[in-house]
Amino acid sequence: MICGGGRLPGDIAAKVEAGGRPVVMFAIEGWADPAVVAPFRHHWLSLARYGTFLRLMRQEGCRDLVVIGILLRPSLWQLRPDLGTVRVLPRIVRAFRGGDDHLLTSLGRMLEDDGCRLLGAHEVAPDILAAAGPIGARMPGARDAADIALGLGLLAATSPFDVGQAAVVANRHVLAVEAAEGTDRMLARIAELREIGRIKLPRGVGVLVKAPKVGQDQRFDMPTVGPNTIDGVARAGLAGLAVAAGGVIVAEPQEVVRRADAAGLFAVGVPTPEGA
Amino acid sequence: MICGGGRLPGDIAAKVEAGGRPVVMFAIEGWADPAVVAPFRHHWLSLARYGTFLRLMRQEGCRDLVVIGILLRPSLWQLRPDLGTVRVLPRIVRAFRGGDDHLLTSLGRMLEDDGCRLLGAHEVAPDILAAAGPIGARMPGARDAADIALGLGLLAATSPFDVGQAAVVANRHVLAVEAAEGTDRMLARIAELREIGRIKLPRGVGVLVKAPKVGQDQRFDMPTVGPNTIDGVARAGLAGLAVAAGGVIVAEPQEVVRRADAAGLFAVGVPTPEGA
Repeated sequence: MICGGGRLPGDIAAKVEAGGRPVVMFAIEGWADPAVVAPFRHHWLSLARYGTFLRLMRQEGCRDLVVIGILLRPSLWQLRPDLGTVRVLPRIVRAFRGGDDHLLTSLGRMLEDDGCRLLGAHEVAPDILAAAGPIGARMPGARDAADIALGLGLLAATSPFDVGQAAVVANRHVLAVEAAEGTDRMLARIAELREIGRIKLPRGVGVLVKAPKVGQDQRFDMPTVGPNTIDGVARAGLAGLAVAAGGVIVAEPQEVVRRADAAGLFAVGVPTPEGA
Repeated sequence: MICGGGRLPGDIAAKVEAGGRPVVMFAIEGWADPAVVAPFRHHWLSLARYGTFLRLMRQEGCRDLVVIGILLRPSLWQLRPDLGTVRVLPRIVRAFRGGDDHLLTSLGRMLEDDGCRLLGAHEVAPDILAAAGPIGARMPGARDAADIALGLGLLAATSPFDVGQAAVVANRHVLAVEAAEGTDRMLARIAELREIGRIKLPRGVGVLVKAPKVGQDQRFDMPTVGPNTIDGVARAGLAGLAVAAGGVIVAEPQEVVRRADAAGLFAVGVPTPEGA
């Protein structure tokens, strides 16, 4: 398991080991959380140490590889490649020229050429994905349903451009579209715009809609919601959040339910052609 | 002329009066700048004083109406309607249910039913629109041209959803899509994301792309760039900006050119199917 930031890698590793499969974590320096990594067999690795990674992976007898956790697009200028990386550098440079999608797909293909079988986190721990239906106690109303439909339509339209995977829609009006800032900052923006009076809707109107890009390689960079997302939705004064069923990871689901219920927000998995 | 915020209403009114047509400004309280309005015959008006507006307009013998300047979507809850507004309130409520586009189109139709001929600012002062070609001294390079094409494609795709009219694309990667925050705040976000290391591109890469929504009623809410936009592009560390020729207003064009040249940015009008 290549392990980026956040607690999700630990949760997934625990599920996999509970199922009887041993896990070796390759914790990315600067991203992975030492406390998350500590309970598992692990190696620390900086990015662009592809040669070291391949050697360790073979030593450990790993076959299947999962890439999980927060790992932002690094700058090509910041990487200090080892020899194994230099060998594949032309491919990496080509990969960096496209969007995130292209980058991850290219790196995935590279790993497969070197004998790894790449699996999505949801393939080793299927119950991490949102199912269709309510996640907490509340359900969206008719106005929310219209906002959700508009948001899903918008995300499908922006999908070919390799943009972010989330938008905020309130009263059939698009308030925000996520790109490089990520979901948490997009939600913080809604809260700020509301504070300065640029968004004048009453609280409790509007939905965060999150869905995978159409045709996204679901083995990497699956869109994820967690307790932080619920807090962000609450601070933004929205009514709730909707995620594409089967296409979005729910991290720490009990905590997600607890916070959504406490804040009076709905959280719902909605069927989409892509997620289904 | 219904006059919102910014200096543009004054520039346009001056052009129209220079052409020999008298102008009466209906300055919106809270939005219009008293210094901009002062040189012209004017009346101050709060929003939702539709009855007063119609009476004054008839008294003044106005026939043609231009709506121009910054006028953000107000909250229906904040308006204190007069009797003339109450008469049209059901139409206003219906108008508010859609996006900005829908809102403006509906209000426009309402004004026409009451005998106003609505004109776009570019119809009374045609040279305020960006022409195809360089606006300042610099020209975009090949990488910029690819970013511009991607940005225009994205804006065409989001257009049916009545989203904002601008995006930032760098190295064929979409960094930001504008919605309720507006262009200036979107550019400030790029600067912040760069500062905190979330965007790691070197300075001088990336383009602000701005275009009207496809099928947008160009009589209202035309996308506009001005000196502030140039400052925002510079602070965001981009290479320049591209606007749809014939579809975007350039406010204070000499100052735009001066600041773009001083900052080493390109500014260019690009032909689009819509703008042409």
